[in-house]
Amino acid sequence: MNDSTYDGNRNSHWNLDAVIQQLRVSREATHNIRHQGKIRELPSRAMLASIVEGLQAALFPTHYGRPNLTDESIDYFVGDTLNMALNRLSEQVRRGLLFSAEVDLKQTCNASEEAALSCKAQEITRDFAASLPEIRGLLVSDVQAALAGDPAATSVAEIMLCYPGTLAILYYRLAHSLHRLGARFIARLISDIAHSLTGIDIHPAAQIGGSFFIDHGTGVVVGETAILGQRVRLYQHVTLGAKRFPADEKGVLIKGVPRHPIVEDDVVIYAGATVLGRITIGAGSTIGGNVWLTQSVPPGSNVAQAQMRND
Amino acid sequence: MNDSTYDGNRNSHWNLDAVIQQLRVSREATHNIRHQGKIRELPSRAMLASIVEGLQAALFPTHYGRPNLTDESIDYFVGDTLNMALNRLSEQVRRGLLFSAEVDLKQTCNASEEAALSCKAQEITRDFAASLPEIRGLLVSDVQAALAGDPAATSVAEIMLCYPGTLAILYYRLAHSLHRLGARFIARLISDIAHSLTGIDIHPAAQIGGSFFIDHGTGVVVGETAILGQRVRLYQHVTLGAKRFPADEKGVLIKGVPRHPIVEDDVVIYAGATVLGRITIGAGSTIGGNVWLTQSVPPGSNVAQAQMRND
Amino acid sequence: MNDSTYDGNRNSHWNLDAVIQQLRVSREATHNIRHQGKIRELPSRAMLASIVEGLQAALFPTHYGRPNLTDESIDYFVGDTLNMALNRLSEQVRRGLLFSAEVDLKQTCNASEEAALSCKAQEITRDFAASLPEIRGLLVSDVQAALAGDPAATSVAEIMLCYPGTLAILYYRLAHSLHRLGARFIARLISDIAHSLTGIDIHPAAQIGGSFFIDHGTGVVVGETAILGQRVRLYQHVTLGAKRFPADEKGVLIKGVPRHPIVEDDVVIYAGATVLGRITIGAGSTIGGNVWLTQSVPPGSNVAQAQMRND
Amino acid sequence: MNDSTYDGNRNSHWNLDAVIQQLRVSREATHNIRHQGKIRELPSRAMLASIVEGLQAALFPTHYGRPNLTDESIDYFVGDTLNMALNRLSEQVRRGLLFSAEVDLKQTCNASEEAALSCKAQEITRDFAASLPEIRGLLVSDVQAALAGDPAATSVAEIMLCYPGTLAILYYRLAHSLHRLGARFIARLISDIAHSLTGIDIHPAAQIGGSFFIDHGTGVVVGETAILGQRVRLYQHVTLGAKRFPADEKGVLIKGVPRHPIVEDDVVIYAGATVLGRITIGAGSTIGGNVWLTQSVPPGSNVAQAQMRND
Amino acid sequence: MNDSTYDGNRNSHWNLDAVIQQLRVSREATHNIRHQGKIRELPSRAMLASIVEGLQAALFPTHYGRPNLTDESIDYFVGDTLNMALNRLSEQVRRGLLFSAEVDLKQTCNASEEAALSCKAQEITRDFAASLPEIRGLLVSDVQAALAGDPAATSVAEIMLCYPGTLAILYYRLAHSLHRLGARFIARLISDIAHSLTGIDIHPAAQIGGSFFIDHGTGVVVGETAILGQRVRLYQHVTLGAKRFPADEKGVLIKGVPRHPIVEDDVVIYAGATVLGRITIGAGSTIGGNVWLTQSVPPGSNVAQAQMRND
Amino acid sequence: MNDSTYDGNRNSHWNLDAVIQQLRVSREATHNIRHQGKIRELPSRAMLASIVEGLQAALFPTHYGRPNLTDESIDYFVGDTLNMALNRLSEQVRRGLLFSAEVDLKQTCNASEEAALSCKAQEITRDFAASLPEIRGLLVSDVQAALAGDPAATSVAEIMLCYPGTLAILYYRLAHSLHRLGARFIARLISDIAHSLTGIDIHPAAQIGGSFFIDHGTGVVVGETAILGQRVRLYQHVTLGAKRFPADEKGVLIKGVPRHPIVEDDVVIYAGATVLGRITIGAGSTIGGNVWLTQSVPPGSNVAQAQMRND
Repeated sequence: MNDSTYDGNRNSHWNLDAVIQQLRVSREATHNIRHQGKIRELPSRAMLASIVEGLQAALFPTHYGRPNLTDESIDYFVGDTLNMALNRLSEQVRRGLLFSAEVDLKQTCNASEEAALSCKAQEITRDFAASLPEIRGLLVSDVQAALAGDPAATSVAEIMLCYPGTLAILYYRLAHSLHRLGARFIARLISDIAHSLTGIDIHPAAQIGGSFFIDHGTGVVVGETAILGQRVRLYQHVTLGAKRFPADEKGVLIKGVPRHPIVEDDVVIYAGATVLGRITIGAGSTIGGNVWLTQSVPPGSNVAQAQMRND
Repeated sequence: MNDSTYDGNRNSHWNLDAVIQQLRVSREATHNIRHQGKIRELPSRAMLASIVEGLQAALFPTHYGRPNLTDESIDYFVGDTLNMALNRLSEQVRRGLLFSAEVDLKQTCNASEEAALSCKAQEITRDFAASLPEIRGLLVSDVQAALAGDPAATSVAEIMLCYPGTLAILYYRLAHSLHRLGARFIARLISDIAHSLTGIDIHPAAQIGGSFFIDHGTGVVVGETAILGQRVRLYQHVTLGAKRFPADEKGVLIKGVPRHPIVEDDVVIYAGATVLGRITIGAGSTIGGNVWLTQSVPPGSNVAQAQMRND
Repeated sequence: MNDSTYDGNRNSHWNLDAVIQQLRVSREATHNIRHQGKIRELPSRAMLASIVEGLQAALFPTHYGRPNLTDESIDYFVGDTLNMALNRLSEQVRRGLLFSAEVDLKQTCNASEEAALSCKAQEITRDFAASLPEIRGLLVSDVQAALAGDPAATSVAEIMLCYPGTLAILYYRLAHSLHRLGARFIARLISDIAHSLTGIDIHPAAQIGGSFFIDHGTGVVVGETAILGQRVRLYQHVTLGAKRFPADEKGVLIKGVPRHPIVEDDVVIYAGATVLGRITIGAGSTIGGNVWLTQSVPPGSNVAQAQMRND
Repeated sequence: MNDSTYDGNRNSHWNLDAVIQQLRVSREATHNIRHQGKIRELPSRAMLASIVEGLQAALFPTHYGRPNLTDESIDYFVGDTLNMALNRLSEQVRRGLLFSAEVDLKQTCNASEEAALSCKAQEITRDFAASLPEIRGLLVSDVQAALAGDPAATSVAEIMLCYPGTLAILYYRLAHSLHRLGARFIARLISDIAHSLTGIDIHPAAQIGGSFFIDHGTGVVVGETAILGQRVRLYQHVTLGAKRFPADEKGVLIKGVPRHPIVEDDVVIYAGATVLGRITIGAGSTIGGNVWLTQSVPPGSNVAQAQMRND
Repeated sequence: MNDSTYDGNRNSHWNLDAVIQQLRVSREATHNIRHQGKIRELPSRAMLASIVEGLQAALFPTHYGRPNLTDESIDYFVGDTLNMALNRLSEQVRRGLLFSAEVDLKQTCNASEEAALSCKAQEITRDFAASLPEIRGLLVSDVQAALAGDPAATSVAEIMLCYPGTLAILYYRLAHSLHRLGARFIARLISDIAHSLTGIDIHPAAQIGGSFFIDHGTGVVVGETAILGQRVRLYQHVTLGAKRFPADEKGVLIKGVPRHPIVEDDVVIYAGATVLGRITIGAGSTIGGNVWLTQSVPPGSNVAQAQMRND
Repeated sequence: MNDSTYDGNRNSHWNLDAVIQQLRVSREATHNIRHQGKIRELPSRAMLASIVEGLQAALFPTHYGRPNLTDESIDYFVGDTLNMALNRLSEQVRRGLLFSAEVDLKQTCNASEEAALSCKAQEITRDFAASLPEIRGLLVSDVQAALAGDPAATSVAEIMLCYPGTLAILYYRLAHSLHRLGARFIARLISDIAHSLTGIDIHPAAQIGGSFFIDHGTGVVVGETAILGQRVRLYQHVTLGAKRFPADEKGVLIKGVPRHPIVEDDVVIYAGATVLGRITIGAGSTIGGNVWLTQSVPPGSNVAQAQMRND
């Protein structure tokens, strides 16, 4: 062996100076996508994940909290866990607001821009905290819908710990509350964390009633302007999406237009169905697996795929 | 800037007392889902994940264990890793048994309830340990099926490290053994961990023969009472699900009824196919992509979707 | 309580010796899948995950790097992060090369086998580093395609942080560069990490043009020999797969044959479509949701599923 | 290079089987020090360290707790931190009791041995919890003594965060309370953790009055039967030790005999002084640096070392 | 076993409410030591420890930095490590300034109190950064003094990695620079971290010349107003302390008065010597082990302990 | 508030370029202490700490290993823990050898320099492994000496877990074996880790017989060429040091000359005694606290400090 040839990593070189110089040019000139003006600190995905875990534990301390919680200790646990989560959330909301054009800070807080931002973030966080008991009620209805709707489910504990749908709905309900209060960037990040954990992608702006159940769930997509009633049940790979995206005269997409389905109460949509556009699925309907649906159907409909073909 | 207005998080308040009081009411009164009677310590998902990693390493020390294992050291590694995993598993099985109604503890262990539970958990763990060599054999057949069935696969190592299907089947075979021995809650948790890691959702109660291969795998669902023969091959988004759920006269779902497909030997089911109900897919059949199938087909069938339509 | 019966884990026994002996027999005799000859240290998935995170941060320090980077510090951060990632990558590439038959080490490095391997790994790593600025340019085009193509997207920051498609494409472009340079095993591992994080499975050998956008993404599969042009847009559950696998006279699959679709510029493929075989989707075509397509279509085609059936 | 000679660690062998066999012989035969009979789980040093950190934080949340504690949140923090620390402590106390001969379990708890042990551990923990407010008062007197006694001290915060003496006394006062309640093994472990952190070695059985101040502290030793009054001040390397150890007729040391000094109120002992035996240092005395003292001195004494010698 | 008696920790109770209530009373009334007025966030010891590790690595990247630093990468490493350490230091300095009465913020920064504090902290941090090259020079002289002065030392690497004195002096020189610039609280915390790691306690206000060597070091104390010349050598347990503390008419200690020794160039002080008061040890003197010295000695003195006594 | 003045850390700058440039000059020119020639990777202190923990656990699995080790599992634990520790140790020994001039690699391994180094490191590691059973025997004699010699000691478990002397001697005996086998740099690092943990500084080259006991221990120093017999007992702050360091004609210290005390069997040395030079303390002698001893004393001597003086 020729020692001067072989030196492991010890003498390796990567032409660092040249690569770094080219990356700088790419960043600052040829492919600059940095947000303009003042540097804005981005929200932290890892911190948000830990915040949501804290909220989960505060909402359901027996299932998601610490073992050995007793009657004398449980409120201390809930209080401390919640306080820590809210403190952290407030900071993330603040960062997220820097990316929202719509928030009119001046209205709510009479102060300088930076102070107003913190003040607004705290106001949102306080209102969010106040919404938690109601969210807990909705989540309990969701869990009970799962227990009633899946013959394989054996206990509340199994639904709390082993159903990705439970997790996805929990994250959605928290994100939706934040979205409604104006913390939209944060809400989106939370929904994407849930997506990564469960394969279920629910936009935080969607509106979903109680007793919601998603079984298996991988690949479910619920779009931004979708509206779901009470007791809706979805299976894996169901898409509630948009059919086309209206653009303005310059070809720029118009944002926020209602373009996703309305699903009324007591609808069941089986695996792989794709429902697109601002159509309405009437109450009590059943949409079969793999169906492609782009027109409204009346209440009580039963839609199935065309026949298969045997070769 | 008005300093008395802006104080960062330092003076933030969240009306903690009120929120905590409302959460307590929700927990204890309006939305109480806590399991009745004695508090039962829940199994730990994180601990189970590390247990399965230990079992993986003990089964395939070269691929999932520590590097630098030598002939003189490998059995020490396998032994210590396995022992630690089994000790931990025994405790998780014990916790899980608290949530199973069916286990008749008195039969197996002549002792008080608590002692009987530990004794039963140890018995299950011991039987599970005894099943590991056989499980290893099945897993090797699965890996070889992947190598034979995917032209993109280049080596055993690639299949062991880069195929989510390999992971999903490994978790399934461990979970199935635990399920069969009575540790059902634990088995479900393990299958949900695999689901989260791979997007593949196989119920631990399903029965699956050797040389099983899942390619890509995202969105695959195999239901509780499904039965799969030897050399079955599934692609992404394939559902082997239930068509309808029989309920008793009170409308409560009847649990455990056979309601998922039987897939005989040497069947291939392509991406997106949805197979529902207690039907039988005869040996050697091919089910095409996106097919929606709710009736049995004889051996050697070739089922494809209806023609597309060009607008 | 009978103390000699109940002893917690303290006296538990698992028949370790017997199980370990049987596992050894399975490993060495009945189910030996260990690579022959010299033991080869496998690449580490965890290390690769951290390497890709380092590369991400070096490419987009503002979005994926550390907060508080200033003009005077950003190049130090990029340089140190990149250097650490490349040092680690070089070692992983070296390990991966042990599993590639095709690399002719002797050609590039005049030295012993072991030295040649390290030398080759460093050469690949150096060439990979040189490709990073170009990769960054492609990724910026992808982000801009997302901003232009999704009405729900509100900012570059949202696309960078909340879109699984962004992550999947970033991992793909890095993996593709490594694949092209000969680090195929490593490239596959990176693509499988992305698959696990996002549910999107793009083979590193696929060729994909700029301004690529995947929305939602769960269940997307892009096969090994697929070729995608500029400005292609895919939705969730889209498969660009192989229809059949040619085998040689002994029934062994022939590897590397072109068998996946060619998708020309400006094609949109909606959720759940399955496109199989070496067909060509002409430029500007639109493929509808849940479509099953196995034949080429001319430019400008508009393919949709057969009508649904109302029961 | 001869490749068959050099193989890195990959082929290294350590004669593992022989060494392990010899270690087993040493453990079980030639040098067996394992406690007889039933295996007893040892207390965990790492767990105790984290328990004491929890107690510190509960006692002084502003200085040792979390930042951003507000009036509405501080009691939740204290309650949850304390509860977690006490739960863990109870388990460690239980383990430690297995090593104490003196505890008569039957007296306090009417139950089986194992149950009695847990019951006793909980009783000790509950009594310990009740002693915390009084301990806090003593510790505040200690901090104020430091502020009054050291001209280099600038604030309470400096004394809380930068004085090893503060830490050593805090650990001592907690350990002393546990010792007094019968948790002697645990108490010793806590004192050794403090010793390791600060270089100050105070036996938990020593009795020490309020307003105690140790400056610098490295090498201070306070023996098992020492008794210190109010407002005692010690400098680094001061030993309050035993002179000789009375043995019984068989030469075995008699344990627990008073053999360390009594230091009355308002005594100052300077750096390096060694005070040995059951002597009394009268109130208000000053013992000079490096003094070797083995006889009692009356109140108000001023003891200094013999003159130095200039060569 | 009586199950209602034994319940492990599951039903344990600690009278939490009562203890927490008493602790609150102690905190807020009977033993309130909380700093008055606005809550001030304390500096973090753990963060400071990591900051000093960063500075160490930036000063001596080969010895304390990352392995595999090459000529092309070392400055990126130094720059990024330094930048991160300085960013963090600036925040800690800011917190520490809240506890310093002396800093007149208004003078340096024309802004509100909070802004002035940050501005001052940044100014200190910037000046500190500028002092690092000079500190490095002093530290190199210290290392060379160790190599020249200890016959057991075999290499620079051994002195850098295995001598607690090296660490203690490094921490001291960094702390001294911060102290001199006004960051006194932070400086004290750094010196206490070094004390805990090495048993060597050097007050950051002490003034110490180059080529300083401490051998073994446990128990060394160098007081606040001590002044040491060039090439001083100290052994373990040496105290350079104060003899008495002048108090004002109210008995309150007067802070900051020179009260520790002046040690001139080329003095050696052997193990256990105690040197007290504002005395001067003349250049080139040798002070023997265990000596108690409270009076000045001229240059070239050789002071030893009185004779021992054989019983 | 003037926003352009106050920007938190966001706009802070540290003149990084200038400082980094000056540090480079200091490193490469004015204060270059980098080892010449080829860059040598330094041993890792953190890795060595974990190696010693592994060895501890392998030597005394009941006290320092994992809980719940059973008869069937203990050897697997010992084997795997030992193997991992030895693999890591071998690499650290290899790095350390790069800093030892004396090792003649060519003699032991007929190969290139790099291969010879690895081969030598493995040989040392293998011999070290073979010495472990004997080391265990010595350590058991040490523990028994502590139990017999300290009236405060209550059990073997207390001595194993709560006595810093036990830890220091354990580290010393391991380091001494490595030193004797030629791994001197590594041995020194291990002794410094023990010094930092316990305040006890024993040079690995010192020779110490069985049944060695150190009580309290803070500040104990045992020099490089010291020789201690059987059953020696040391208390805190005892120094067994060198009196003077012979230098050659150029003033360079001569390394390795015997210059530390010989302490014969059954000697007790009390707290603070300083024993210097190549003198002999005869068997069975007692050296009193704070004594300064520089001349040999015959067997059975009883040496005490001069009388104190009462002012």
